[in-house]
Amino acid sequence: MSTDTLPRFFADAVGQAPLDPVAREVYLSALDDGWADPQRLHGEGRRARALLEGAREDIASALGARPAHTHFSPSPAVATERLVMGIAAARTGRKRVVASAVEAATLTALAHHVAPDALEEVGVDETGLIDVDALSHLLHAPDVAFCAVQHANREVGTIQPLDAAYAAATVSKVPLIVDATASIGSLAPPKSWDALVADPASWGGLGGFGVLAMRPGLRWVARWPGGEPWAAGTVPLPNVLAAAAALRRSEAVRPASTMKLREATERLRAGIRGIPRSIVLGHPTQRLPHLTAATFVYADAHAVAQRLDEEGFAVGVGCSCGSDGARVCPTLAAIGAMQHGTLRFGLHRGLSAADIDRLVDALSRAVEAVRADWGAPA
Amino acid sequence: MSTDTLPRFFADAVGQAPLDPVAREVYLSALDDGWADPQRLHGEGRRARALLEGAREDIASALGARPAHTHFSPSPAVATERLVMGIAAARTGRKRVVASAVEAATLTALAHHVAPDALEEVGVDETGLIDVDALSHLLHAPDVAFCAVQHANREVGTIQPLDAAYAAATVSKVPLIVDATASIGSLAPPKSWDALVADPASWGGLGGFGVLAMRPGLRWVARWPGGEPWAAGTVPLPNVLAAAAALRRSEAVRPASTMKLREATERLRAGIRGIPRSIVLGHPTQRLPHLTAATFVYADAHAVAQRLDEEGFAVGVGCSCGSDGARVCPTLAAIGAMQHGTLRFGLHRGLSAADIDRLVDALSRAVEAVRADWGAPA
Repeated sequence: MSTDTLPRFFADAVGQAPLDPVAREVYLSALDDGWADPQRLHGEGRRARALLEGAREDIASALGARPAHTHFSPSPAVATERLVMGIAAARTGRKRVVASAVEAATLTALAHHVAPDALEEVGVDETGLIDVDALSHLLHAPDVAFCAVQHANREVGTIQPLDAAYAAATVSKVPLIVDATASIGSLAPPKSWDALVADPASWGGLGGFGVLAMRPGLRWVARWPGGEPWAAGTVPLPNVLAAAAALRRSEAVRPASTMKLREATERLRAGIRGIPRSIVLGHPTQRLPHLTAATFVYADAHAVAQRLDEEGFAVGVGCSCGSDGARVCPTLAAIGAMQHGTLRFGLHRGLSAADIDRLVDALSRAVEAVRADWGAPA
Repeated sequence: MSTDTLPRFFADAVGQAPLDPVAREVYLSALDDGWADPQRLHGEGRRARALLEGAREDIASALGARPAHTHFSPSPAVATERLVMGIAAARTGRKRVVASAVEAATLTALAHHVAPDALEEVGVDETGLIDVDALSHLLHAPDVAFCAVQHANREVGTIQPLDAAYAAATVSKVPLIVDATASIGSLAPPKSWDALVADPASWGGLGGFGVLAMRPGLRWVARWPGGEPWAAGTVPLPNVLAAAAALRRSEAVRPASTMKLREATERLRAGIRGIPRSIVLGHPTQRLPHLTAATFVYADAHAVAQRLDEEGFAVGVGCSCGSDGARVCPTLAAIGAMQHGTLRFGLHRGLSAADIDRLVDALSRAVEAVRADWGAPA
């Protein structure tokens, strides 16, 4: 197997789908069309505003939200920040936050920020599913500002039982914030939320901004400086138009695309299970269709990934929300997985069964080579 | 004159230059090249990181900043927010902020946020220049957290005397924040600042992120939630690469481009002065090369702009940082200009003398028609 004859194999598509070609076209024509500010009054400005509002309606409709309560922010992280700060500020006197132990770093950091020493983490089982009874119990406290449960986890792919979480939150009259930045595009948008954050990059849009949606009755107070209530400054119009086009396409092709990704992922998972002393992580059925995380006993993940990289395969290691793999990944810690043995594979459309077999073959050889190098017990 | 035969005439290029064609190419090839995260360890991730750091060095070098102290943020407004919050937090006990009366809305809102009831505004003369003596006097107070003076004003184009402002700030040991979001690309980057904010859209980059640069000795403390010290989440790599390419080009062509824009602007200003009861605003020489603001006595600017729009000319009205023109524009208020009579023309490269004459002719007719409609005294 030579890297001269085969193209690079990119299997690190986590939270970021390949750019949709139609979105690319929409982006380019918006870019070439002009550079008007939707806030201006002349014809170009009015047209830009009409396009922006049309895109907002499309995105809101796909997310099951109302356009008037769907906002664009400079990035998904800024969207999450505004949402958390705004909801926490509206619920004065409630000092506690309840969040799953597997939330992304942005959300956990925000929860610590608004609830110093009062973040109650809801544990997960070894498949990554939250303990809904524990959540329900924690929500009985009278001073919970909000609770946060992600739609799907970007480390191991597990989909959370949002309907049950939402029912518990509703009983306790606590707003539920759902981070769907890793899932929209791969899964049907969730219905059970009071506030939702989404990332256009996850559905093959260009990214470059974040989406937040709220239910009409949800109270929030702007606790940040600046003029606009949600977006500090404007959001690039071509990116918004591309995201709307990509979301329409993604929703249309999702059933077929999901089936194809599931097949590829099942083939990969079966292949990994064939490698001695391997453990496939995450939930067996409730998971993102394209994501697989696995642990290889006695094989350091960085060393395996480096060998794969040299053979032309790009795969993920450690924490996808962290950076250098040196930090402890909260999700892996919460499910009790080994930090240093975990590899993550994010498949994308257009991979054949032969591609997957090639990956499994290279992976198997890399794991064995690392074990041999490191003198792993037989 | 028919809109069937002539193209639309866009004269509202304020703080946003036409996209540089080379930047467009760089963007597209970066987009097609892949979608790797610069934080990942595989070959694609390492390459993305190398490209990102190369772009950071290019942008820092053009701005006269050090790469290690040059950061990218999801938007220019978020960059300003982080900068102001971080510097204010580091200078605890200093409750006062000194800022020019003509800062953009984002900066003024931030100043009010960190210094409630303690924002000292430095007035400007009728050309929009700040009163450096007044600035110096205000900086003598012992409890000034920071001062903010913009590089150039996006309403009337006036360039501030930053060297003098910086000298005054240095004497008083108060850090100077310079908002250069409307000027880089049109003017040589300023040298006199402790912290600088820039917007790639102003130099023909794609925008979609903000740039902040600090002098190495400047103290700041992160007072916002989240992991990364400056950027919440990541910034889109293709936009950063396009911005770096556009900035290199912009710096190379600026002398020639400026001369062309100045000629066009001088022609426009002379034409406007030929319209009865018109007043050209801003400084006669210290101003952005492409920007002209003017007031027409007894002619409501919205009505004039609407007539121009119908004839195919897009021009700006009122506040460029505001939205609907219904709000009072702080800059126009500070220089004592009429709020309802002010039009703004942002020229771009590629306009001929004949184009300008055509604009002046249409403007003259529109002003006279509005005056006639409204029964203005002769």
